[in-house]
Amino acid sequence: MRQTQSSNIEQLAEQVVAGDRRALARAITLVESTRPDHRASADALLAQLLPETGKAVRLGISGVPGVGKSTFIEAFGLYLIEQGRRVAVLAVDPSSRRAGGSILGDKTRMELLSRSPDAFIRPSPAGRSLGGVARRTREVLLLCEAAGYDVGIVETVGVGQSETAVAEMVDLFALLLLPGGGDELQGIKKGIVELAELVVVNKADGDMQAAARRAAAEYRSALRMLRPLSADWQVPVLQVSSTEHRGFAEVWAAVQRHREVLGEAGLASRRAAQAKAWMWSEIEEELRSRFAAAPAVAARLAEAEAAVAAGRTTPAAAAQELLGRFLGEAPSRD
Amino acid sequence: MRQTQSSNIEQLAEQVVAGDRRALARAITLVESTRPDHRASADALLAQLLPETGKAVRLGISGVPGVGKSTFIEAFGLYLIEQGRRVAVLAVDPSSRRAGGSILGDKTRMELLSRSPDAFIRPSPAGRSLGGVARRTREVLLLCEAAGYDVGIVETVGVGQSETAVAEMVDLFALLLLPGGGDELQGIKKGIVELAELVVVNKADGDMQAAARRAAAEYRSALRMLRPLSADWQVPVLQVSSTEHRGFAEVWAAVQRHREVLGEAGLASRRAAQAKAWMWSEIEEELRSRFAAAPAVAARLAEAEAAVAAGRTTPAAAAQELLGRFLGEAPSRD
Repeated sequence: MRQTQSSNIEQLAEQVVAGDRRALARAITLVESTRPDHRASADALLAQLLPETGKAVRLGISGVPGVGKSTFIEAFGLYLIEQGRRVAVLAVDPSSRRAGGSILGDKTRMELLSRSPDAFIRPSPAGRSLGGVARRTREVLLLCEAAGYDVGIVETVGVGQSETAVAEMVDLFALLLLPGGGDELQGIKKGIVELAELVVVNKADGDMQAAARRAAAEYRSALRMLRPLSADWQVPVLQVSSTEHRGFAEVWAAVQRHREVLGEAGLASRRAAQAKAWMWSEIEEELRSRFAAAPAVAARLAEAEAAVAAGRTTPAAAAQELLGRFLGEAPSRD
Repeated sequence: MRQTQSSNIEQLAEQVVAGDRRALARAITLVESTRPDHRASADALLAQLLPETGKAVRLGISGVPGVGKSTFIEAFGLYLIEQGRRVAVLAVDPSSRRAGGSILGDKTRMELLSRSPDAFIRPSPAGRSLGGVARRTREVLLLCEAAGYDVGIVETVGVGQSETAVAEMVDLFALLLLPGGGDELQGIKKGIVELAELVVVNKADGDMQAAARRAAAEYRSALRMLRPLSADWQVPVLQVSSTEHRGFAEVWAAVQRHREVLGEAGLASRRAAQAKAWMWSEIEEELRSRFAAAPAVAARLAEAEAAVAAGRTTPAAAAQELLGRFLGEAPSRD
């Protein structure tokens, strides 16, 4: 499509809302495209679908590699579908490469879930920057909501900054842990534990159940050391077995309790704040990328950074010089 | 001074390097001024003094109100001066207002230290934004180094984001705690505990000494739950009595040990990274503030934010529209 016509966009929007999976896939491809004409069409599509969005429960799931995120999400997703829900699973992983097998990987990883007509699994968009990946994932989440998925699960890899980005697009951010106790927490990036509004000890299977109980108690006491995110919400620490299919009702009950505690107004204000923050991060990312790409800046940037790092010029002076080049003005300050 | 002449700047720089306190105070006033012509002079002054900077040990000190930061800094500062050091004490507190008694407050709080010819105490610059306050404090730290102060202590209030800003301008970030144990940690913003490279339990006085020992053990175990900032550095938890003047030699020894572990190359690379990050934060803050102040943007900003918060428009579309207004182009994306 050289330039998707507005009538085509309208049609695509209708098909997405009608729950046409192929239309949803095409809509996602459009949103993830980097071509400027596609971008304009994507913006038009999103604008059209916006009234149909916002109805899903948005969950973030984080955890280090090896914690069993895929097994958990598959088992949890199947549980939700049994409860009559429709589940979309997205991923934020700036390190993934589309061509590198991420799609195949996800299909293989969540084989049962991917076969369900009530599940939609989408790997992380191949991204240059975390901002770009997060932006697209947010938009794909909106598309999935418009398509009638009423639980949106955003998975993240648990090793970097993507957790903050995911926490800023969901209603509840959950952290999966292994039954390893204190040592386990040391392996987790510090900021991530603090984002968690729900902790799930995975692999509480068979003869690991006692260890999982002990670990859960340790995590509870570690969490007490940290100030709660909200005075109204004590972070629950639950135990599940993804292979033995135990604990999912409790996880879902905790998600719903969190929503009740938040209240309708609380949820609306959380999402409004997220949307505003998203707008500002779009603006900042774009300003920064246009700044760095501007020929007048690009020609001097490496030299300026080197001079600053070596202490030959002050950061403020270097910044002013580059800003003057970008905005084509004489340097000035607030 | 309508426009400080370059010969005047040269003279001022020489006086600062010669250790003239009144010249240092004038230089700081210049750096803290918001007038554009002063700013140009300040940049010239800083450029001139840059080769004389970088020789101090830069320490960040954080802790909630009531932990005894002033008493600690005064006693620690006097200890350092006894050891032949010259100590500059700066503050980052975006909530402070110059007229509101911050200067008087500091003088009163650190009366003994402020009378020493080897100490220089400067309250937080009155700031609009944290970025503005941090920028000026970084520059004042450079001025103090040029003036021969070889320990720079940057104090922060321990209740907000200013800790990150301070951690990004010092060689070591220390957190003061009361002997309250686990409950104490709950009162501290989570991110702050994780920035700490040294924890000092203050008020380990008289019959509080046993409680302080227990608290120190609790803090040590809580810190083990968090991943260390560096594989080479286990965060020491020390106890001091600022009123009974005990524990300061141990604090200073820990600061020096940290420097040894870091090594010369490590310190240089930490500072180079800080300088580059500072340059980028200058650029980003300035881009954002010029963006928001641009008449074409300002006229639409509130409306765009409201539309985004209410879900009437997507954050991406709102961002593109505003960016187009700022850069005077047709909307485009990465």
